[in-house]
Amino acid sequence: MAEAVYAVGLDVGGTKIAAGLVDRDGELLREERYPTVGSPAKLLDALERAVVEACEGQSVGAVCLGVPGLIMARENRVVFSPNLRAIEGIPLKDELEHRTGSPITIENDANAAAWGEFRFGAGSGVDNLVFVTLGTGVGGGIITEGLLLRGAHGSGGELGHTTLHATGPRCTCGNRGCFEALASGSAIERRARELARAEPGSALGKVAAESGEVSGEEVTRLARRGDPGAVSVLREAGRWLGIGLAGFVNVFNPEVVAVGGGVSAAGDLILAPAREEVRLRARSPSRDLVEVREATLGAASGMLGAAALARDASGAYVLGE
Amino acid sequence: MAEAVYAVGLDVGGTKIAAGLVDRDGELLREERYPTVGSPAKLLDALERAVVEACEGQSVGAVCLGVPGLIMARENRVVFSPNLRAIEGIPLKDELEHRTGSPITIENDANAAAWGEFRFGAGSGVDNLVFVTLGTGVGGGIITEGLLLRGAHGSGGELGHTTLHATGPRCTCGNRGCFEALASGSAIERRARELARAEPGSALGKVAAESGEVSGEEVTRLARRGDPGAVSVLREAGRWLGIGLAGFVNVFNPEVVAVGGGVSAAGDLILAPAREEVRLRARSPSRDLVEVREATLGAASGMLGAAALARDASGAYVLGE
Repeated sequence: MAEAVYAVGLDVGGTKIAAGLVDRDGELLREERYPTVGSPAKLLDALERAVVEACEGQSVGAVCLGVPGLIMARENRVVFSPNLRAIEGIPLKDELEHRTGSPITIENDANAAAWGEFRFGAGSGVDNLVFVTLGTGVGGGIITEGLLLRGAHGSGGELGHTTLHATGPRCTCGNRGCFEALASGSAIERRARELARAEPGSALGKVAAESGEVSGEEVTRLARRGDPGAVSVLREAGRWLGIGLAGFVNVFNPEVVAVGGGVSAAGDLILAPAREEVRLRARSPSRDLVEVREATLGAASGMLGAAALARDASGAYVLGE
Repeated sequence: MAEAVYAVGLDVGGTKIAAGLVDRDGELLREERYPTVGSPAKLLDALERAVVEACEGQSVGAVCLGVPGLIMARENRVVFSPNLRAIEGIPLKDELEHRTGSPITIENDANAAAWGEFRFGAGSGVDNLVFVTLGTGVGGGIITEGLLLRGAHGSGGELGHTTLHATGPRCTCGNRGCFEALASGSAIERRARELARAEPGSALGKVAAESGEVSGEEVTRLARRGDPGAVSVLREAGRWLGIGLAGFVNVFNPEVVAVGGGVSAAGDLILAPAREEVRLRARSPSRDLVEVREATLGAASGMLGAAALARDASGAYVLGE
């Protein structure tokens, strides 16, 4: 049997599905987007269409869906997805295989993104990667000695609710001082609002007065211009990021920590203080050998990673090496 | 070639070497102890003697040494061992293979102990185990999907210096609020001294006045009798233990967390509050499916785990299944 040239990766989000046709080197040959609004039946129709159109006219070996929420890996079923309720409980693999004729696997979206950075991005060339996404929340994925860490029930790699400061700010999960409550985009916006309120005459205060809020993008924009309040907000988030990463550096001894998600656009404004905390708090030799980098694939990491996982899970990647 | 029936595991500590002849089921058939005092040359002589005497007259397939400190796994060399300086830099594997004729591997002692609990103890029968030892410090080891987590340079699985409370008490590592500074035997003794000073008439205060200190064993003894001060010290340490474990439960999604080391003798006095924090702080489904247990092998875990690693690394275990 001739070996399939391409794989298809889907990044299934709360508002859209991104579907890509990807070659073995991570080159994206075709990409299409579909809305995810609707019932489970409509979602399945959209997923079917995404898979069929991505595969059309090409030799596709396998398809992987990166989906939000908790997956029971051995059941290939999403059991909990607060941002995409319609996907919960659907027999995704069986139904889509039946409809499309392609072998389907499913993976947590953060794990898929980690695999993308591992195979084609900031972690390519290493065996151990900690990938953290800083967006509204904090997500992540872990690769140890070339293997994606899934754990007993496929819900491993959950980094965002590690406690960094037991009496810290309240997190969306109900606890205090989680990584996510201290270093996410939401945490940055919360601190910016606090500063804006405390100093209405500051640049942050003026933005808040004008628009009624301070977005993370605005904080980064002001910090790039050297505004001291905005710089201090990012520095504080960066320090918490580093405190969290230091623990993961100790635990995983990775060659690379890659930081992605919207907040990572702040670059060294957040990564420099993070590196400093890793240097202070992680242990030798792990801290001396690790590199904390920006992720390189941006929003495409989930789709590319899903495509790579489709190959890797089916063994096509290994066979083709 | 007939398959070897036994493996030899050495647990090399700061004051003694424990060497055991172990069968494939983890049964200990012979055990001997040797002092580790002395120069690198004397240490090598003691290790040689330990290996030779453990193997004597038996069919031994392989030998593994569990050693304290940081190992460059690919070099089979200990690079940093504050509690056993004599072992640093010795070409252990080559030298002992040359002297004894047995295949030698080396592994971090906490990793070996984790492997022992995984193969023969609290983690037998599962694929994902987080093992934490609470002694003077906090050590640990991780097994994910049946593989020992070593990381890029063999220094992974370092759990004790994860920050749980960034402004917490000073740790021996120089930082504040590490797991080790909050949930170790030393942390328990520090809190007991503080309470003894604050309330000299309490049971803890009287012990401190009589003996000049309060050992962890004494705290446990008093707590077992229901002394409220001692109970509160263990409850507080247990809560910090649980805060740390909750993060690891999220990250690793293990079936079992096993708690060993001297402090684990306090049993549910420390494990019950730990389980409560895991229930509060870890995420579903990981928190619902994990069991936090006492380790079962006690001080033998390192030796038994080393013996199992000798087999597993050499492949004898797999072949014999």
